[in-house]
Amino acid sequence: MLIKPDGQTADDLPDDLSDDLLDEAQAVRAEVIKCKAAVLWEPNKPFSIEEIEVAPPKAKEVRIKILATGICRTDDHVIKGLMVSRFPVIVGHEATGLVESIGEGVTTVKPGDKVIPLFMPQCRECNACRNPDGNLCIKSDITGRGVLDDGTTRFSCKGKPVYHFMNTSTFTEYTVVDEFSVAKIDDAAPPEKVCLIGCGFSTGYGAAIKTGKVTAGSTCAVFGLGGVGLSVIMGCKSAGASRIIGIDLNKDKFEKAKAVGATDCISPKDSTKPISEVLSEMTGNTVGYSFEVIGRLDTMIDALASCHMNYGTSVVVGAPPSAKMLTYNPMLLFTGRTWKGCIFGGWKSRDDVPKIVNDFLAKKFDLDQLITHVLPFKKIQEGFELLYSGKSIRTILTF
Amino acid sequence: MLIKPDGQTADDLPDDLSDDLLDEAQAVRAEVIKCKAAVLWEPNKPFSIEEIEVAPPKAKEVRIKILATGICRTDDHVIKGLMVSRFPVIVGHEATGLVESIGEGVTTVKPGDKVIPLFMPQCRECNACRNPDGNLCIKSDITGRGVLDDGTTRFSCKGKPVYHFMNTSTFTEYTVVDEFSVAKIDDAAPPEKVCLIGCGFSTGYGAAIKTGKVTAGSTCAVFGLGGVGLSVIMGCKSAGASRIIGIDLNKDKFEKAKAVGATDCISPKDSTKPISEVLSEMTGNTVGYSFEVIGRLDTMIDALASCHMNYGTSVVVGAPPSAKMLTYNPMLLFTGRTWKGCIFGGWKSRDDVPKIVNDFLAKKFDLDQLITHVLPFKKIQEGFELLYSGKSIRTILTF
Repeated sequence: MLIKPDGQTADDLPDDLSDDLLDEAQAVRAEVIKCKAAVLWEPNKPFSIEEIEVAPPKAKEVRIKILATGICRTDDHVIKGLMVSRFPVIVGHEATGLVESIGEGVTTVKPGDKVIPLFMPQCRECNACRNPDGNLCIKSDITGRGVLDDGTTRFSCKGKPVYHFMNTSTFTEYTVVDEFSVAKIDDAAPPEKVCLIGCGFSTGYGAAIKTGKVTAGSTCAVFGLGGVGLSVIMGCKSAGASRIIGIDLNKDKFEKAKAVGATDCISPKDSTKPISEVLSEMTGNTVGYSFEVIGRLDTMIDALASCHMNYGTSVVVGAPPSAKMLTYNPMLLFTGRTWKGCIFGGWKSRDDVPKIVNDFLAKKFDLDQLITHVLPFKKIQEGFELLYSGKSIRTILTF
Repeated sequence: MLIKPDGQTADDLPDDLSDDLLDEAQAVRAEVIKCKAAVLWEPNKPFSIEEIEVAPPKAKEVRIKILATGICRTDDHVIKGLMVSRFPVIVGHEATGLVESIGEGVTTVKPGDKVIPLFMPQCRECNACRNPDGNLCIKSDITGRGVLDDGTTRFSCKGKPVYHFMNTSTFTEYTVVDEFSVAKIDDAAPPEKVCLIGCGFSTGYGAAIKTGKVTAGSTCAVFGLGGVGLSVIMGCKSAGASRIIGIDLNKDKFEKAKAVGATDCISPKDSTKPISEVLSEMTGNTVGYSFEVIGRLDTMIDALASCHMNYGTSVVVGAPPSAKMLTYNPMLLFTGRTWKGCIFGGWKSRDDVPKIVNDFLAKKFDLDQLITHVLPFKKIQEGFELLYSGKSIRTILTF
């Protein structure tokens, strides 16, 4: 609830803040907002929907009203304790919102702008941002500090500080992010769809287009047909690949994979041969690009071995299990293969997210295929149960 | 000795076969040549300089008079039994020569042409050759068959067949290669220098220019300052790298490394910190490209860790020890690094070798820096002793 002098609450603010409201919104940016958020008080416990206080944005910060947010497995890693985080925390990192107010010195967004918060920031000043091929901005919170750039949190609940997550925290009606962690997008973008561009879709799509640089007419192999794997397939298709082979142990996933662009789907269970041999035989040894979208060490090696020994490129998209070592035969690399990884598809977030949204609006790809469930925000726990059941690709929470 | 009807011997043929001689040379292409060669009768034994018989080139084959040949560690791998080969064998694979005669259907070279034999062929028809980024031609003899494309050898000695080595066999006055294993080069090229373009120089230079795609203004780290490592440095310099750091345990190699373009040289022995940290501190964490030019698993990991975690590219140039597995933390890759290997620098041999020779003639790089010894062919054993002693970078044998 937005505490304003006239008693209007945050819930009264329309999704598309009109110009008349903008000045008013800016005027009240010094106010604390009380609103609902899904708080994780400790690991391995369900979400608590709590009333929290969201402090106004400080200099170079942006307060955002969240319109829609997706449920991603990375959020679950915090719940499960697989990812370092301070508690209590508000997770969620894939969302669309409207700028509610801005702090001093913010120039790239203004109240009322439709935006996507960015878990991978782009400060445009660090070593990685300045490199044409870099995107892992030094401002990204990969170490789980759980605070904004000034070292403090804008969230509190029951008098206790609540921490931020990956520069975003979107499982809340309002959040505050640093200016380097938000991108303005086209006002016409449907929030409950383009929120996927904030993480899952772009991660897979970019792995194919930006990192793998899939070429027209090529043959691609995609290991793992979850939401990100499907997005890789969409990237391969968009790049003009002539053959896209989806690989998964679960054949139930084949129909959707074919719907988004896979030309063939195979299960490693259907052959006693190594999957790399199966793929080589299927394609006349022409797999130019392979993608590991599971996060398993053995499939990372399978994917590497599956691309052409001399000109093949294999991209690690799935996060490797932490603190595990990978053992492989370096001759796989020496003969000419390229092995690479990427985070957020290799995209430079502030530069590229608005363009990807434009490509969506131009119908270059279809996000509907990835969205299996839409739930009201208060049903977040149900959304996570769908994730655990394997029945959802992406569940979107709307506010 | 070339057995010709008029009794002229091979030794009488001038290095620069004149046009008058060409027709004559073509006319006698059906003849067997008797000449000297350095034969390895079995592993771990010295070379025997023997009189051998070199059969005339069959269809699509080319007989070459060798003018100069370099001694490369790969040749020694056959002696030491580290590389599969049939015996007896004529090794040597880095050379310059003159076409003595051609078999039926040869169109890309003619008698009298100055040429470089190619241990990495380019058939222009296989899967790898047809790919714009491929160079590991299916015709390359990586399995050690030791014969030409038709499955037979053109060498014999004392009535026994002698096998070919890596499509070339250059430790002999005359050799026969398949047409796909030879490139015509500019007549003005000095044979005792450009022979290095047949292997060592191009392997390192291409790793930087063609495979690594080093960019102007970048920072490079080169692990291992032997002849190929020096060639990597020359490639980095040629690409416009602004900082090139040579790394070797042997500081005696630093002077030459600096002479060919290294801006700094360091020994891992001089710090207790991991070399990747030393390099990061030296460069403000800006190493864009790293090269492993030793062939050790631990330095392959060091080199990978030394390039920037997000936009860095690491190239494996040194051949990994056979049948050894490499164990590393895949997070090194996941954060965005690119890890790749290459053979013969990634060059398409027939297309690129003539261009590299032209670049040498245009003084884009200086091969003299790599040549420490020149010996007459009969002193081949002495040349290998220089290799073992570590006193030579490249020893060239002249005929």
